Amino acid sequence: MQILYHAPFDPFSRKVRAFLHEMGLGFELNTLDMIEKPKDFIHINPSEELPVFELDHNHIRLCGHDVICETIDEMIQAETLFGDFDDMAIRAEVRRLTRWFDVTFYQEVTQKLFYEKIIKPFSGEGSSNPRALQAGYLNMRRHFSYMKWLLQKRNWLACDKLSLADIAAAAQISVIDYTGDIAWSKHPEIKQWYMIVKSRPSFQPFWSEYITGRTPPQWYKELDF
Amino acid sequence: MQILYHAPFDPFSRKVRAFLHEMGLGFELNTLDMIEKPKDFIHINPSEELPVFELDHNHIRLCGHDVICETIDEMIQAETLFGDFDDMAIRAEVRRLTRWFDVTFYQEVTQKLFYEKIIKPFSGEGSSNPRALQAGYLNMRRHFSYMKWLLQKRNWLACDKLSLADIAAAAQISVIDYTGDIAWSKHPEIKQWYMIVKSRPSFQPFWSEYITGRTPPQWYKELDF
Repeated sequence: MQILYHAPFDPFSRKVRAFLHEMGLGFELNTLDMIEKPKDFIHINPSEELPVFELDHNHIRLCGHDVICETIDEMIQAETLFGDFDDMAIRAEVRRLTRWFDVTFYQEVTQKLFYEKIIKPFSGEGSSNPRALQAGYLNMRRHFSYMKWLLQKRNWLACDKLSLADIAAAAQISVIDYTGDIAWSKHPEIKQWYMIVKSRPSFQPFWSEYITGRTPPQWYKELDF
Repeated sequence: MQILYHAPFDPFSRKVRAFLHEMGLGFELNTLDMIEKPKDFIHINPSEELPVFELDHNHIRLCGHDVICETIDEMIQAETLFGDFDDMAIRAEVRRLTRWFDVTFYQEVTQKLFYEKIIKPFSGEGSSNPRALQAGYLNMRRHFSYMKWLLQKRNWLACDKLSLADIAAAAQISVIDYTGDIAWSKHPEIKQWYMIVKSRPSFQPFWSEYITGRTPPQWYKELDF
């Protein structure tokens, strides 16, 4: 069996879990703690980063969310979540936006809000920094405006079909949504798109994940909210 | 003509310049300032990140170093700097180490040393933070030990041929080396490897790049130092 080493609220682990599911690949989960990894994990991935995907037929380990997605896409070589192999323009747009959510959105929004509100209090690093939270909220509004603009032009974020860009974006948002900080009533277009991604079978495992002592808002696990 | 938007001391721009040269692709450089980008650059790349590669036959823009390398490798589909298309284990190792230098080495070493010693004083953000520099030096020693261990097993970092991992690593090191902070005499194995990469035609343009008012150490541009 193929094994995915992951942590429940790591947005990059969620991105890969949904991606592998959408690609029809079966895997077993090996669940780690995002903050304190076991000592011997350094032998699985020397950079100690999650996620890591272990292929069953040759024990090759793919380390890092982008490495996993690019390698699996290359192995399968069918029409995939990166867009049709013949359509360079679509593939460039899928990769551009996937990187946008993995790098820019993560640093400007997820890291600020989820780190300040969930990780920091739970890892004993003190209370949230109001300036970091404020920056996170402002950045989220800016990113949501951009997503709205994209969704006015297209059915999905990168093209007219579900792509890795939608999965990458929804993985980030699914983690932030646990904090209850998204004012969904102000973003009906993003909400519409998110409800559709949220309802896909590949996203269902996330809605039963909880952080001990921290209750998510009621809508967190509702598919029609 | 294909255009690469880049900044001279951006390690990711250097990675892509060397990569495109090694892949035999011609391009013109459009040189930007790493700190102050022109206002209309947002129309070239909405995330305002460098590098961006514009293909000539269809004006498709590839945004971000990893997107550029993955897309060009996919377009060319020959034996490439990612390793032979049939050898999954090598390709996984090339991608793992490329990510290692792009993400881990960059954050732990380049960003600390180059930012503190070059960017900060030049952008008027004040003087270097000794603790950040100290952390950068310690991390560099740790990374160099890992590179030494890799080079004891192989001719190059990821396998027995030059790969994208060597280019990514040398691009980071080329930028740090400008600060004069690498004690080369203590790292003969890394020096041996770096001299070989440094001598490749794809790296020559970097050795004539200067930062006004900041002189590099004498060995910065010497191929045999």
